[in-house]
Amino acid sequence: MKKHISLFILSIIFMSANSNAQQALFSNQQITSPEIQQDNSVIFRMLAPNSNLVQITGDFLPTEKKQSPMGEIDMPGKVDLIKDNNGVWTYKTKELNPELYSYSFIVDGLTTKDPSNPFLVRDVASVTNIFIIGGGQADLYKVNKIPHGTIARRWYDAPELGMNRRLTVYTPPGYEKSNQKYPVLYLLHGAGGDEESWISLGRTAQIMDNLIAENKAEPMIVVMPNGNVSQDAAPGEGSDGFYKPQFMAPKTMNGSYEGSFLDIIKFIESNYKVKADKQHRAIAGLSMGGFHSMHISRYYPNYFDYIGLFSAAIMPREDATAKVYSNIDETLNTQMKNGYKLYWIAIGNADFLYKTNKEFREKLDKMGMKYTYVETEGGHIWKNWRTYLSEFAPKLFN
Amino acid sequence: MKKHISLFILSIIFMSANSNAQQALFSNQQITSPEIQQDNSVIFRMLAPNSNLVQITGDFLPTEKKQSPMGEIDMPGKVDLIKDNNGVWTYKTKELNPELYSYSFIVDGLTTKDPSNPFLVRDVASVTNIFIIGGGQADLYKVNKIPHGTIARRWYDAPELGMNRRLTVYTPPGYEKSNQKYPVLYLLHGAGGDEESWISLGRTAQIMDNLIAENKAEPMIVVMPNGNVSQDAAPGEGSDGFYKPQFMAPKTMNGSYEGSFLDIIKFIESNYKVKADKQHRAIAGLSMGGFHSMHISRYYPNYFDYIGLFSAAIMPREDATAKVYSNIDETLNTQMKNGYKLYWIAIGNADFLYKTNKEFREKLDKMGMKYTYVETEGGHIWKNWRTYLSEFAPKLFN
Repeated sequence: MKKHISLFILSIIFMSANSNAQQALFSNQQITSPEIQQDNSVIFRMLAPNSNLVQITGDFLPTEKKQSPMGEIDMPGKVDLIKDNNGVWTYKTKELNPELYSYSFIVDGLTTKDPSNPFLVRDVASVTNIFIIGGGQADLYKVNKIPHGTIARRWYDAPELGMNRRLTVYTPPGYEKSNQKYPVLYLLHGAGGDEESWISLGRTAQIMDNLIAENKAEPMIVVMPNGNVSQDAAPGEGSDGFYKPQFMAPKTMNGSYEGSFLDIIKFIESNYKVKADKQHRAIAGLSMGGFHSMHISRYYPNYFDYIGLFSAAIMPREDATAKVYSNIDETLNTQMKNGYKLYWIAIGNADFLYKTNKEFREKLDKMGMKYTYVETEGGHIWKNWRTYLSEFAPKLFN
Repeated sequence: MKKHISLFILSIIFMSANSNAQQALFSNQQITSPEIQQDNSVIFRMLAPNSNLVQITGDFLPTEKKQSPMGEIDMPGKVDLIKDNNGVWTYKTKELNPELYSYSFIVDGLTTKDPSNPFLVRDVASVTNIFIIGGGQADLYKVNKIPHGTIARRWYDAPELGMNRRLTVYTPPGYEKSNQKYPVLYLLHGAGGDEESWISLGRTAQIMDNLIAENKAEPMIVVMPNGNVSQDAAPGEGSDGFYKPQFMAPKTMNGSYEGSFLDIIKFIESNYKVKADKQHRAIAGLSMGGFHSMHISRYYPNYFDYIGLFSAAIMPREDATAKVYSNIDETLNTQMKNGYKLYWIAIGNADFLYKTNKEFREKLDKMGMKYTYVETEGGHIWKNWRTYLSEFAPKLFN
């Protein structure tokens, strides 16, 4: 038997060497990075014998103050790795708190990925490595040995936009075999994001699986549409092919997404086993998705009993004359009179949108429109949005 | 209006600068790479003013002969980029044939991704950039403006393995609303692959969408399971968390996958609208998946009317005494007597498995077991497997 295995392994090496696609395997650095220690410190390593300086930047490092046109701002810091005699550069962090972290190496000034870590996420046009320090809140981001929901990428007809468009749907464990009907959370991404963002950066499937397994959230369908009406799908997944994603897609805040949102609701309610009423619809979004959630929920003022604004981009519209953006006070008033169960606003105290959110809350106060307000540490970052989803989802449909 | 937009953009820049996750956006190189020219030549660019040598390696470059323990082998070549006065390095290819290509930069000896191209695929532990030159066969790999199927990641119960496991299912356009029942292709990955491989590297969803839209293939369900019985899911997607993938997962060729394959069929046939009979089941796989397809189809000798062996790893088993691997000739004979519509064998003339495939065909000849044989150029590469799927799928269920 031993001989058989050795033969096979030899063949594999040969195969690999012979293959373009797979050749990188064995030229890959035989190095472990990141290596999470018992005490939750992390060792990063990179083999770069010919490089003069290897640094690391990541959201686990202290931030640095930088000058900007609007004053001092916080930027993620960077530190130097130390080179040993074998050309391996190393950096060990302090003990890290539970969290999903992202990082990049900087080799002689050039930002690059960790060649020993194949786990990457794309945020707009940037791709960074990720790792998870488990425990506490971060255990919600892990794939645990519990029942798992299904993630589907589907295309829906959007007649208002004259397109066939892609969206991501999470259905909870047991959905397919169940005779039940389910409530639906519409979960919207920010500027530069798309129907992949909440799944990849937001860890929505893991958060929902874990909350449902712990009986902390009702089993629900989570619909993650694409809020960039100029796209039919995420960059690389649609008919525009591969191109460098831009931060702001055209027409994202001109009212056409909000005005066409019923096409998404119609699709979901005619394709899934859902409770198709206001009591069983929630809408929430981060940044631009918070802007969209605010406008969609008041434009269709009797559709949603649960509204979540996560670091919402409460700010001027691209086209303030669009029908969707007219009569804002009037429709908010109607929404208030129609009633809802939860209007949930969350933002970090260092968020650049803090002030506009404060002004929006003051406006709601003046109108007598009730809301729940949660203020956290930190800025306009995914760490906060994962936390907000974990806090918001348990408040829905119960 | 102009003022509103500018304000917004300013805010965005500020937001971005303030955010860990999104800060990389504006530090990203304002450079286009790759840039596909009218004549299908491609320009690659990288801003690296402090680097001494920037090279590119990719499967569009001529291969180089390298020495190996088994003689001379072909390796993907590399070429130097040329630096201009702004520190931008450039390389322009010759006119390229239609294909999905992959590549990496090499900066002062260090393999790295193209910072201007966020489109990456993982092959085992290696991550490389990709781009598509359209036209001909490669148009099948594009997302065209045609109806699209759904891709679902689902978890199934695998009692034989004592696990809950993840698989990928492609359902054709219109499946959800249809009253029809569909045939099923089980499509298996190679060593080091998983339930993501055929979707990401194999472009299965695009190939099937395009073939179906062109009436070249029957609408069918394509099931892409995970053939590594030690995993519950692809690296990073299962309960093992993030870890560096290995080429060979333990127990991949010891018979337990083949022996437990009915759990997958049972799951699909009780969860999808399928024609649950031999005439409407196909099984195919690449490399180790070809090995699995050969063994599964003869071990369950009355289950599949269509069998596809793509560069199949016809080679010794890890555990030749396993029940699955006993009576090979006898079960092949039974399979032959039971009858099937297509036994399709394809391999490249430069594949390291060419010889063992030839011996296997000779064995089948001797037995009088009919098969269709397709020999292509090239080796053990995804380019071939995408082509084989595009040729095999139209032959099914008609």
